[in-house]
Amino acid sequence: MAAAADEVGRPDAGLRTSETDRMTAFSDGVFAIVITLLVLELRVPEYHQGELLSALLDEGASYLAFVVSFVYVGVIWLNHHALIRLIRATTLALSWINLGILLGAVIIPFPTAVLASALTHGDTADRRAAVALYALAAALMSAPWLLFFGYLRRHPALHERGVSPEHVRTQQLRPVTGLVLYGFSGLLGWFVDPLLGLIGIIVMIVYHAVTSEGLRAGLLRRRRGTGH
Amino acid sequence: MAAAADEVGRPDAGLRTSETDRMTAFSDGVFAIVITLLVLELRVPEYHQGELLSALLDEGASYLAFVVSFVYVGVIWLNHHALIRLIRATTLALSWINLGILLGAVIIPFPTAVLASALTHGDTADRRAAVALYALAAALMSAPWLLFFGYLRRHPALHERGVSPEHVRTQQLRPVTGLVLYGFSGLLGWFVDPLLGLIGIIVMIVYHAVTSEGLRAGLLRRRRGTGH
Amino acid sequence: MAAAADEVGRPDAGLRTSETDRMTAFSDGVFAIVITLLVLELRVPEYHQGELLSALLDEGASYLAFVVSFVYVGVIWLNHHALIRLIRATTLALSWINLGILLGAVIIPFPTAVLASALTHGDTADRRAAVALYALAAALMSAPWLLFFGYLRRHPALHERGVSPEHVRTQQLRPVTGLVLYGFSGLLGWFVDPLLGLIGIIVMIVYHAVTSEGLRAGLLRRRRGTGH
Amino acid sequence: MAAAADEVGRPDAGLRTSETDRMTAFSDGVFAIVITLLVLELRVPEYHQGELLSALLDEGASYLAFVVSFVYVGVIWLNHHALIRLIRATTLALSWINLGILLGAVIIPFPTAVLASALTHGDTADRRAAVALYALAAALMSAPWLLFFGYLRRHPALHERGVSPEHVRTQQLRPVTGLVLYGFSGLLGWFVDPLLGLIGIIVMIVYHAVTSEGLRAGLLRRRRGTGH
Repeated sequence: MAAAADEVGRPDAGLRTSETDRMTAFSDGVFAIVITLLVLELRVPEYHQGELLSALLDEGASYLAFVVSFVYVGVIWLNHHALIRLIRATTLALSWINLGILLGAVIIPFPTAVLASALTHGDTADRRAAVALYALAAALMSAPWLLFFGYLRRHPALHERGVSPEHVRTQQLRPVTGLVLYGFSGLLGWFVDPLLGLIGIIVMIVYHAVTSEGLRAGLLRRRRGTGH
Repeated sequence: MAAAADEVGRPDAGLRTSETDRMTAFSDGVFAIVITLLVLELRVPEYHQGELLSALLDEGASYLAFVVSFVYVGVIWLNHHALIRLIRATTLALSWINLGILLGAVIIPFPTAVLASALTHGDTADRRAAVALYALAAALMSAPWLLFFGYLRRHPALHERGVSPEHVRTQQLRPVTGLVLYGFSGLLGWFVDPLLGLIGIIVMIVYHAVTSEGLRAGLLRRRRGTGH
Repeated sequence: MAAAADEVGRPDAGLRTSETDRMTAFSDGVFAIVITLLVLELRVPEYHQGELLSALLDEGASYLAFVVSFVYVGVIWLNHHALIRLIRATTLALSWINLGILLGAVIIPFPTAVLASALTHGDTADRRAAVALYALAAALMSAPWLLFFGYLRRHPALHERGVSPEHVRTQQLRPVTGLVLYGFSGLLGWFVDPLLGLIGIIVMIVYHAVTSEGLRAGLLRRRRGTGH
Repeated sequence: MAAAADEVGRPDAGLRTSETDRMTAFSDGVFAIVITLLVLELRVPEYHQGELLSALLDEGASYLAFVVSFVYVGVIWLNHHALIRLIRATTLALSWINLGILLGAVIIPFPTAVLASALTHGDTADRRAAVALYALAAALMSAPWLLFFGYLRRHPALHERGVSPEHVRTQQLRPVTGLVLYGFSGLLGWFVDPLLGLIGIIVMIVYHAVTSEGLRAGLLRRRRGTGH
């Protein structure tokens, strides 16, 4: 029997735990599929003979939406990568929270397609709705991350060696920021200007990209501190 | 040569067995794809300029169908996870039964799309047909699980260490419940009211979510009992 | 560094070999995706309010085509499983032959969709064309399997321990049978009757399902013989 | 805890590194999905009863585009395979460069679909645009490979044992060739003749297929030289 099916040691008397391998493989599969499915939104535009080029150029906003969402899923994957490295085992509750994280990632192609459609074919009202929808989806997506860190704080027995309680507590700040600032970007896009909201969303994606670095840096620094 | 390609010990003179690794990886891949493909049903609605928001709101039932099916595939994945942990090796017959389980999972996006369409664009007759189709698919999906447990009962040599025959026997109850109660939900949806049938389906999904916990709990309790 | 990236021993002075792990994982990914994508062909039919049920029943042939192709990909996956267990390392040539096998599997949804369309909406001429296309695709799909076994015969150094040259030679019979009999089914479907051709195809899929058992049986019997 | 979650040794004081396993699995997933999604471009053509065969034959160019892109993704996968074998650990920067490589692969179905459409339904102007788009995508795709090798050169601590600095330096030649010659093929297709550009693209894909062999050969030769 390979390692994948082994039972991990029970780190906590009250917890029924199991290995993280299959959860990781499943999550990676989902991320790989989502990031690849985004391209399905890039359809060959309808065109009259001889006008393919201009039809393609008209779809410019779709390509922007595609690249933004590709980077976004990439950021989520890197963050998830860092998340899984915090734990040494999983529980049923954690598996469900992880499914919540995946639901957030899986849904991205839909607001992306709505955004691309509104940018290309819609008017200002449509763009407001599309930016608000994207921001709403992104804000809700932060909720299971918050649950994940909260659960980890209450169950230190699940922590990987060298992961300190303070470190886990610090991480909670990030989904909170996500909830608040994506929400704010949505309001901005809806009440003020869709472009402003879109800029807010892109800034937030960059923020999560940069702090995925910060998270791992902190994690490793602490591991060195414990002589690991 | 890595462990993945190794031959596992022959636990039974009459059985030709092989490792479960590749079956697990293949199944996880299928589950990851199905759960992600569900989002493809969420299409940008057709809309006139300025009416994107109301067009999106009209699709509300599609989003409900999406979330229900996402949770459903998640439940099946967790149950499958627990299922694979019962066995220490696979046979050709078990591989085929597993393909039957995957067929059940793979088909979910189709009744989901039919249900979403009927909820959004259909009348009561269409909803009855859609709910009955969803329930029929869910009921049939229980059949290969029943076969799996039955096969395991007849081949104790395939059991993972610490898995007792009584445990396997108990598990058979769950697909039987699935067959009967999904079928009953379908009849309810068809003859009485589609909404009642839909509620029956959702109750059943929650039941399988909760007993996936129960299954693993039982498994682990027994493992402890054998000093594993 | 994990085992996946290790270099396997060089079993043959003249061959540049590498581990099979990533080829296996990639192949399993492709098979998992193909078998799941088949469901995308099951579209919600166009229907007038109140006529969803009859519209669904009209698509019956699509469901048949879906199930046949699901079983077909399952059979290919099981055969591929047995194929990879014959080798202890891969080469660039073998990787390309494997890509040829995957091309054959990847293409299945297309003739499946054509067949489903012809069965549902076409006349006899369309069905003849669709059955002949399916049979042609299936026949061509046998070619890389033939190349694989031929390559293995010429490079015994790649054989997994316990795999005899005679065993490899025997296996070549199966893709030859595939090439000839799928081709014959196509001719039958084209010149005589599309239904006869379709039956021929289904018989062949069952044959490959049954002999995937036969293959593994032979393999294991020989392994025992060598005291493995 | 399985090997996948282990921390690899820190090969460089200034680098925060982590294992390559999950990056490899994620990349393989993406490649497997892209190569399979290509078939989704092969749609059943619209046809009048009795004219399925001629409708299929009219799509001949689509099939050509499909096969070219399948081989192309296969080549990228083999090259990526060889790339990952050069490194013993990854960093955040390398993960992002790898995401750039995946973006290049993920986008292939789109220019493929545009090309297939232009070859089937477009005039010369459309074909010029489609060939130029395909070549542009292929040229841009070389950029992250160039970054990857450049990063590796600056961080020899990441090299897998037996990988010499000269070897890494030599490899940079290949994405440079890609950038220049795919770009040239695009110009050829745009200003001279779309067919010439297409031939240039196919020649380049064959070149990368052949040098994927060359790369591994060189790698292994050096490994032997260092007595590995």
